Amino acid sequence: MTITTKKDIKTVAIIGTGVIGASWTALFLARGLKVLVTDPAPNAEKSLETYLNAQWPTLTQIGLNEGASLTNYTFVDSLDNHFDEIDFIQENGPERLEFKRSLFAYLDEKARPEVIIASSSSGIPSSEYVSACRHHPERVLVGHPFNPPHLIPLVEVVPHTTTDRETVVPRAMDFYKSLGKKPVLIQKEIPGFIANRLQAALLMEAYSLVSRGVISAADLDTTVTSSLGLRWALNGPYALNAMAGGGSFQHFLEHLGPAAKSWHDDMHKHTFSMSPEAIQDLTRTVEPMVQATDLDALQKERDDVLLKLMDMKSKSSLLK
Amino acid sequence: MTITTKKDIKTVAIIGTGVIGASWTALFLARGLKVLVTDPAPNAEKSLETYLNAQWPTLTQIGLNEGASLTNYTFVDSLDNHFDEIDFIQENGPERLEFKRSLFAYLDEKARPEVIIASSSSGIPSSEYVSACRHHPERVLVGHPFNPPHLIPLVEVVPHTTTDRETVVPRAMDFYKSLGKKPVLIQKEIPGFIANRLQAALLMEAYSLVSRGVISAADLDTTVTSSLGLRWALNGPYALNAMAGGGSFQHFLEHLGPAAKSWHDDMHKHTFSMSPEAIQDLTRTVEPMVQATDLDALQKERDDVLLKLMDMKSKSSLLK
Repeated sequence: MTITTKKDIKTVAIIGTGVIGASWTALFLARGLKVLVTDPAPNAEKSLETYLNAQWPTLTQIGLNEGASLTNYTFVDSLDNHFDEIDFIQENGPERLEFKRSLFAYLDEKARPEVIIASSSSGIPSSEYVSACRHHPERVLVGHPFNPPHLIPLVEVVPHTTTDRETVVPRAMDFYKSLGKKPVLIQKEIPGFIANRLQAALLMEAYSLVSRGVISAADLDTTVTSSLGLRWALNGPYALNAMAGGGSFQHFLEHLGPAAKSWHDDMHKHTFSMSPEAIQDLTRTVEPMVQATDLDALQKERDDVLLKLMDMKSKSSLLK
Repeated sequence: MTITTKKDIKTVAIIGTGVIGASWTALFLARGLKVLVTDPAPNAEKSLETYLNAQWPTLTQIGLNEGASLTNYTFVDSLDNHFDEIDFIQENGPERLEFKRSLFAYLDEKARPEVIIASSSSGIPSSEYVSACRHHPERVLVGHPFNPPHLIPLVEVVPHTTTDRETVVPRAMDFYKSLGKKPVLIQKEIPGFIANRLQAALLMEAYSLVSRGVISAADLDTTVTSSLGLRWALNGPYALNAMAGGGSFQHFLEHLGPAAKSWHDDMHKHTFSMSPEAIQDLTRTVEPMVQATDLDALQKERDDVLLKLMDMKSKSSLLK
């Protein structure tokens, strides 16, 4: 895979090195960028080092950019003296509104006006704290990755109502693309954004079906991995609908949409309640399957096939 | 891929050679079975021949069983004189209840008592016509494939309330497994069964999001193919939840379930209506993307990667 990063962004600042921030750091380093990292947690620096060492072989296998180095990052107590060289900021702090407000006020005051400040958060949309940015709120947006960002391509780019859509949004999209990511533009802030909502739509029905005794958890998993998942790894729902409609999305929707609607109505009658009792009952049904599975070994095999799958997709001219 | 078919089933009857029946025929032939085919439609025999010739190279690439032959089928006007040698019946007739009633009454009268009669239909559960089977209704069930059955592994096995669960259901599951399929057992007949319902859950939200102008159809497709689909091709929702919960499904559900429920509640406020106007409006938004896509070329690239993906999965010991 050959990826060329945007030339105008050479140094990225990472705030917060939990699972998401650490994974972003790994990705930026693999793409040949310099990274300034900060996190006040005790052991954060050591944890990051351990994480990066563990992930580097995988990133090497995917392919490193020219100049990429595992050691091209600096862990700093404060970004204060570094804003001159910071070209892009990816924030991964705690999901607390007051924290975000003061952090973004600080970043907006210190960062050069053209520097994009992106938050990885899906929990708090940037409109809720951007009023604290008194200088250049138009360069603030959300860049929400799917975990882990160094492997899974999706980034949901979510501007707030006054984010600059002429230059800031396209620059953010281009930057993520230049890293080999697949950024998508979310036009309006809505709860959960897109991937989490689509996932929740399927999960809620999955919880309902197993709770109702219609299918076992193991068989539900097999259903997904041996049908829908195979399709959705390669084609999105709209392209698939058009294919199934013989080239016409309208034909598909007119003929098969009403059935989907009727199933959806039936699902609504059986919505999983998410009450403590319902969670308890469902857990009792699912846990034996989980206990019988070596999740670590499964994840290892999964990651191996996932890398090969993404490599095949990146070599295809039409698959996204 | 090495697949060993069940030795007690040597000859399969296929009723109806539309897209599903033709694809089942291709699969049975590739697995070394003899197939008796019948369909009253004009040109059905010729269409089947064309289809089989077109699919055989793909099936050869996947791997043929010993004795597999493209010509090991006989197109017959009637099954009347062949029930002695028929070991399994896969029905793919029209989705009309009266038709199914008389067809299944006929098959039940003629087929040897131990022969399983499976319907590919997801539209009409077998409980609705099994009362017409006066001899051995306990060997009737649904074996609903995901299209096309010669490529996509899933089969939803759906017994009616009096299908024999001691011997008939396990024999049907074993037979499909012996073909390299992934059968799952659906314990209760519900509208749409499992895969269609899970798909509809996601599709209905996908229609809503694009209709509301939250995201473009193209970006929605990218969201799925670059995040959820990659995961679901390899792991099911329950295994993924357990991984995300650090090995505990309960931990995941207690901590992230409430958010999924809140997004689900929000989705319900914006359910896509499926009215003619809503279909029209959504089509206007989606059709330009469809027009700009070479669906045939896309499908060809997709099938190529799909085969390789399934081959990688079949070589893994843990992935399903």
